[in-house]
Amino acid sequence: MIKAGIIGATGYAGAELVRLLLGHREVEIKWYGSRSYIDEKYAKVYGNMFQLVEEACLGDNLQELAGQVDVIFTATPQGFLAGALTEEILEHAKVVDLSADYRLKDVKVYEEWYKIKHQSPQFLEEAVYGLCEVNRDKVKHARLVANPGCYTTCSILTAYPLAKEGLIDVNTLIVDAKSGTSGAGRGAKLPNLFCEVNENMKAYGVASHRHTPEIEEQLGYAAGETVTINFTPHLVPMNRGILATEYASLKKIKQADGTYAYPSYEQVRAAYDKYYQKEYFIRVLDQGVYPETKWVEGSNFVDIGFQIDGRTGRIILMGAIDNLVKGAAGQAVQNMNLLFGFPEQEGLRLVPMFP
Amino acid sequence: MIKAGIIGATGYAGAELVRLLLGHREVEIKWYGSRSYIDEKYAKVYGNMFQLVEEACLGDNLQELAGQVDVIFTATPQGFLAGALTEEILEHAKVVDLSADYRLKDVKVYEEWYKIKHQSPQFLEEAVYGLCEVNRDKVKHARLVANPGCYTTCSILTAYPLAKEGLIDVNTLIVDAKSGTSGAGRGAKLPNLFCEVNENMKAYGVASHRHTPEIEEQLGYAAGETVTINFTPHLVPMNRGILATEYASLKKIKQADGTYAYPSYEQVRAAYDKYYQKEYFIRVLDQGVYPETKWVEGSNFVDIGFQIDGRTGRIILMGAIDNLVKGAAGQAVQNMNLLFGFPEQEGLRLVPMFP
Amino acid sequence: MIKAGIIGATGYAGAELVRLLLGHREVEIKWYGSRSYIDEKYAKVYGNMFQLVEEACLGDNLQELAGQVDVIFTATPQGFLAGALTEEILEHAKVVDLSADYRLKDVKVYEEWYKIKHQSPQFLEEAVYGLCEVNRDKVKHARLVANPGCYTTCSILTAYPLAKEGLIDVNTLIVDAKSGTSGAGRGAKLPNLFCEVNENMKAYGVASHRHTPEIEEQLGYAAGETVTINFTPHLVPMNRGILATEYASLKKIKQADGTYAYPSYEQVRAAYDKYYQKEYFIRVLDQGVYPETKWVEGSNFVDIGFQIDGRTGRIILMGAIDNLVKGAAGQAVQNMNLLFGFPEQEGLRLVPMFP
Amino acid sequence: MIKAGIIGATGYAGAELVRLLLGHREVEIKWYGSRSYIDEKYAKVYGNMFQLVEEACLGDNLQELAGQVDVIFTATPQGFLAGALTEEILEHAKVVDLSADYRLKDVKVYEEWYKIKHQSPQFLEEAVYGLCEVNRDKVKHARLVANPGCYTTCSILTAYPLAKEGLIDVNTLIVDAKSGTSGAGRGAKLPNLFCEVNENMKAYGVASHRHTPEIEEQLGYAAGETVTINFTPHLVPMNRGILATEYASLKKIKQADGTYAYPSYEQVRAAYDKYYQKEYFIRVLDQGVYPETKWVEGSNFVDIGFQIDGRTGRIILMGAIDNLVKGAAGQAVQNMNLLFGFPEQEGLRLVPMFP
Repeated sequence: MIKAGIIGATGYAGAELVRLLLGHREVEIKWYGSRSYIDEKYAKVYGNMFQLVEEACLGDNLQELAGQVDVIFTATPQGFLAGALTEEILEHAKVVDLSADYRLKDVKVYEEWYKIKHQSPQFLEEAVYGLCEVNRDKVKHARLVANPGCYTTCSILTAYPLAKEGLIDVNTLIVDAKSGTSGAGRGAKLPNLFCEVNENMKAYGVASHRHTPEIEEQLGYAAGETVTINFTPHLVPMNRGILATEYASLKKIKQADGTYAYPSYEQVRAAYDKYYQKEYFIRVLDQGVYPETKWVEGSNFVDIGFQIDGRTGRIILMGAIDNLVKGAAGQAVQNMNLLFGFPEQEGLRLVPMFP
Repeated sequence: MIKAGIIGATGYAGAELVRLLLGHREVEIKWYGSRSYIDEKYAKVYGNMFQLVEEACLGDNLQELAGQVDVIFTATPQGFLAGALTEEILEHAKVVDLSADYRLKDVKVYEEWYKIKHQSPQFLEEAVYGLCEVNRDKVKHARLVANPGCYTTCSILTAYPLAKEGLIDVNTLIVDAKSGTSGAGRGAKLPNLFCEVNENMKAYGVASHRHTPEIEEQLGYAAGETVTINFTPHLVPMNRGILATEYASLKKIKQADGTYAYPSYEQVRAAYDKYYQKEYFIRVLDQGVYPETKWVEGSNFVDIGFQIDGRTGRIILMGAIDNLVKGAAGQAVQNMNLLFGFPEQEGLRLVPMFP
Repeated sequence: MIKAGIIGATGYAGAELVRLLLGHREVEIKWYGSRSYIDEKYAKVYGNMFQLVEEACLGDNLQELAGQVDVIFTATPQGFLAGALTEEILEHAKVVDLSADYRLKDVKVYEEWYKIKHQSPQFLEEAVYGLCEVNRDKVKHARLVANPGCYTTCSILTAYPLAKEGLIDVNTLIVDAKSGTSGAGRGAKLPNLFCEVNENMKAYGVASHRHTPEIEEQLGYAAGETVTINFTPHLVPMNRGILATEYASLKKIKQADGTYAYPSYEQVRAAYDKYYQKEYFIRVLDQGVYPETKWVEGSNFVDIGFQIDGRTGRIILMGAIDNLVKGAAGQAVQNMNLLFGFPEQEGLRLVPMFP
Repeated sequence: MIKAGIIGATGYAGAELVRLLLGHREVEIKWYGSRSYIDEKYAKVYGNMFQLVEEACLGDNLQELAGQVDVIFTATPQGFLAGALTEEILEHAKVVDLSADYRLKDVKVYEEWYKIKHQSPQFLEEAVYGLCEVNRDKVKHARLVANPGCYTTCSILTAYPLAKEGLIDVNTLIVDAKSGTSGAGRGAKLPNLFCEVNENMKAYGVASHRHTPEIEEQLGYAAGETVTINFTPHLVPMNRGILATEYASLKKIKQADGTYAYPSYEQVRAAYDKYYQKEYFIRVLDQGVYPETKWVEGSNFVDIGFQIDGRTGRIILMGAIDNLVKGAAGQAVQNMNLLFGFPEQEGLRLVPMFP
């Protein structure tokens, strides 16, 4: 039984962490950190936790927290952890950071896209990008895990095997992503009001969203080349769920008879199976079936489908996740499981809720 | 480890049973019954179950099923079980019926409200009304459990302690209930289309809904008198959740000083605590807090709040449940746990999902 | 062609006023008042108005505004108009107030329920309560119209003929009302965020909502007696619409044969027809049809249905409006039409939008 | 005052036609055709029309209808009009067809994508594709107008000026479109149930949707070359609205200094202005503003925004319409206005409803 602390426990991602950790057999939450609600009962902030969490909220003193727990989750605004992390903290507790502070290896890219100065670039190299299915072994030995973004988790995992196997021209990749509104956080902002979001759909952050370089960096590692893509997020009137629809030109590959041709359904499928067949949390759907966000709601699954379009020589990939689970808290728990040698699925055998 | 069969596994209540039983450590589902989808893979009908359920659907042959399992759940239309149940079946397997066939003790009341002839009234007497918090001991020894309706579970539990303790005049009770649309089932009917329900609210079954006599019968037992009430259900544009707002005139009770007066907040609260303090699944909220359906979503909880109105001498009670869990599948599992001596919360320690 | 000014033009009710007045043939909007957005283009605040409104927002100087227009609409917080209104303003322009400042005749009741001191009680007597179908003649000659609240418009009009004709015991009246979220306004508050409201339902302001005394006062005039009722508002995950479900005990009335009996369907219907048959905006539905909020969306209609319950001696009334139209801006325009002698339906012949 | 008949008046597009025509000063609806509801009162099928439409539904006898009206709208399944249209009908009445029967000039393309045989290809040549802003003059003199599809209207108008002016490589065009659920029609089908659509998002018809060839044909005319594109529709949990996000590679164009470079914001904007500046129904938004479906809800507007991505050399175009208005009934009325010489905006000066 290990002890965990959460900084940012009253945001939506933090609250989802609480939900998941309450069902985890190896962890006890010792610290519900929330700068805005210090001393208030956590269950007052989240009525669903009534009689399940009796604790009050504590502050965000990382130093103090590190002395009391084995693992710290930071579900905090960009820049918070970079400004607070020290070697001493990392000596006491492992850290899983749900913010973007240690996701990008190149500090200049971080500062350009996030418009803030990075306060502790010295930890960038040791930080492990916590996309478990790709970096599992590295995560196991890390002290500091950079938990991937919600859009990025979905976008990368959906395209990864094809980038890795050279079946697509990665620089033609266009990711058109749609997210439920919990991704916008629990801040009391006018654009997130019910009446503004409901019965409405819009794009935002077009050609400028901060998850873009994260996708490019990771797919670049997979493809072995520099990658530049288009990524367009959209806001959807639903609570949870991300659907990424991705477009890329297929590369002609050498066939059995020596000629070059676009890969067949079976060849694409084989690429997915090569990387994902043993992955519990990634479900590559049957031919002709496309993912629906509801099929993964409340769970840690990534559902993937695809369709080859012979007319245009492109392939359309579709991936779906629950942005708060595999896109945030669930993946953070999965990383914790790897860090501490727990079974990877512990606390995450969640059956998606439908309807 | 016991074996379970579900008839009506492809309706919403049946699917929720599957979701819950997959997380139950003492049960294995052996029979996914669905007349409409025989031989189709269950996961084709519910995409969320992909790779979690590999079985195909079977028919609704109760006789055959009874020979293979320890418990049968029937999530079927009214009249199905009454037309199929036999002594032989009950000798082989315990039955938890999610339909209304054995909920009302008086066959005439059943036939009047349901407009169908009851085919096996001989089992009415032995059937136990499976409102666990009220009839726990009877359920433990039953063969046939009549799982309460969704509206009724919420309406009864919200008012039960006050009826039992004589704090309200039960014949003034008015239940104004609001339900998510999953309560209407998965039938492809025009009024349940997205565009008809979304951005819309309406009452239905006014003064004629079938859950009325069920509430009356049970509150009658509690109050020790015949009860006639008003019950009005409403359709709400959300998937899950029932909120029951209940109104009743308070009775003046004898106070410490010998005078008669309306009960105070503390006196009402004491009545609730008397019956519910030890109940894990019933959460009586703090003073001034009213239930929200989202606080119980996906869980087996019943949340209850109340407000005394001195101006009118009435009390307003509010109860919330997830109609598919405590209002159907969750309560069915709770009944199963009682029937087989499992811990009552096994498979039901579900943390409500928010948002 | 008259000139109009709106104070509070960037709230939801103010914006709906703009929408309606743009379609009105006798009015030109001269002043888009909004303290928060002074000098910003109105169409920047409401993107739907792009190229339809070119003006920028102005402040809330009533004095100055009164010199430039014929009619002023105030869609402002409680207390604003009471603190700013002067005899001089009323000499220059007619005022239709969408706040509660002049709705209650008894200043003590106002101060008790609204918890603020009334700054200009001297205008209370002359203010006319602008429920057009009830006070049409008085409105025509007014200078100051108190536009009724959204819940109250719906609640009162639904019960009015029965109160007036003595068919119900008004002191048994219970109003259980459900409102779309636009009723909560455009303030950036956490409880109104999409993820808090969506897939959720709750009661609020139980036994303490400020519309209660307004309903009691007006139904008191109709019934000719002091009235005390229960009123419970609920928040529904939809943008627009109010549904009021009302319960009251029927009074036995003298029948043709001299005996006393509960009124029949026809007798209740006759009461409605007596007051509403010629009212364009009130639609009493056919027998057995209950209102749906979507049937009135975007329009100025009030839809009413009812059901007699012989078992309990009660009648269930149901009324539906669009809270932003008949519950706010539409009724304000209707009042303006009466004030200036325009056809009462001018600008309001809106066909409800479905779906 | 002309007379109109609608075949398919009880579908969502037909009902929207009724809503719009009731507000049109030059038209009277004489025939509410609906095979499924013959002899039933129209207002029984659409409760919002209570007291606004007193007529009962009639059948779909085009021959008979043509003798009684000046214009016929067919909002019918594919193949219906093609199987029923005759020279005689066209001699009596003008026809605006909301189905796809006469949208594609090449009968083979029609039969390939729609999988049905075309019964009257002889009318294909004379049929005018009723995209008013592009084909205004042709429509004025037509007898038979093929009203464009909802996705196509939005997709084409958003890209048209850039295709026409050669600013993009049209064969790189990818259209990722998102639609409200009313686009799926009023058929009682399981996938359109509230609980299946709500809180869910999915792609469908990937690389096979029937609107693809329609977009290709029209953009091909604009670009002066054969065009092959990717088009992916998605279902969104909202009633109305289409958002099309379109991606295309920019072409380098000759600049003032003789060099070739990607077009600037101003150059792209100039292309839009060239074609749309005088168009009332097309609103090209300010720089940095992207369309939201809610800003056009209930109106005939098309809102367009765009963003150049210098990193990838692509441009992202975004267009929004109300699928039932500009995407169906509104455009049909606009076509009727052109056919009969009415002001083009008559009946269509609808202010978008927000929220």
